[in-house]
Parts: sequence; structure tokens; C-alpha cells
Amino acid sequence: MGIGHNSVSADQLRLFMERIERLEEEKKGIADDIRDVFAEAKGQGYDVKTMRQVLKLRSMEKDARMEQEALLDTYLAALGMLD
Amino acid sequence: MGIGHNSVSADQLRLFMERIERLEEEKKGIADDIRDVFAEAKGQGYDVKTMRQVLKLRSMEKDARMEQEALLDTYLAALGMLD
Repeated sequence: MGIGHNSVSADQLRLFMERIERLEEEKKGIADDIRDVFAEAKGQGYDVKTMRQVLKLRSMEKDARMEQEALLDTYLAALGMLD
Repeated sequence: MGIGHNSVSADQLRLFMERIERLEEEKKGIADDIRDVFAEAKGQGYDVKTMRQVLKLRSMEKDARMEQEALLDTYLAALGMLD
């Protein structure tokens, strides 16, 4: 048990911290990669602001499509059509 | 050349978009992993809010240490001690 139970395990806590920090580093690396792709596109003459708008629209469309599919599954399951 | 030059290359633009979307997916996956680690730590009795505070302090210390090292390099370089 951890700190909340007044029995600190320094090693366990350190391991959790290090796992999170490693993941945060990875996440930052990917954010840098994304920035690089935008910079490359900009270098090819594309407008980054417009690209971001298109990406947002594509993401919204994808969310709507997935929501629709989930709802379809719910209805199919309710009607026993997924068995 | 891209859209900015009035000669759209649909394929090139699509490739840029897909690269960014793939990277965004990866980033989201890592964010989910981070959330999972916090959940696991919480399950072991650790307080997530306190963990976040410690992580922030560790990050600030690391930034300060890196800044200090960069400044040291600058001074050493200025004095020709890195040649």
C-alpha cells in the first residue's frame, strides 16, 4: 500500500514517477514530430491554420461516424442481432 | 508547391494530414497510458494530486539544471574551453 495508508514505499513511488515521466517524454517527442510535419507542410506552401481547421473537421466527422456506429451497435444488440 | 501557390496537390496534402493524424493518435495513446499509470498508483493508495505536484517540482528542477548546464557551456565556449 502507498502513501495514503501511511506506509510509503519509496521504490514503488519512484517507479510510478519514472514511468509517468518516461511517457511524458514520449508524448513531448510526438508533439515535436507533429510540429515538424506542420513546418514541413508550411515549407511546401501549405497554410498551417487552414490545415488545423481541416484536421478539426475531419476529427469531428470521425467522432460523429464512430458515435453513429456505436449507436447502431447498441440498437442491433438490443434487438439481439449481434448474437 | 502547395495550396499557397494555387497549385493544390491533393495527394501531398492528404499525406501531410494522415501523418499528423497518425501522430495525434499515438499522442492520445500515450496520454491514455499516463492516465492508466495514475489510476494504478491510485489503486495502490497514492494520491494523484500530490503525485502531480511532485512531478511538476521534479520537472522544474530538471529544467533549472538543464538551463544551468547550457549556461555553463556558453561560458566555457566563450572562454574557448570547449575546443
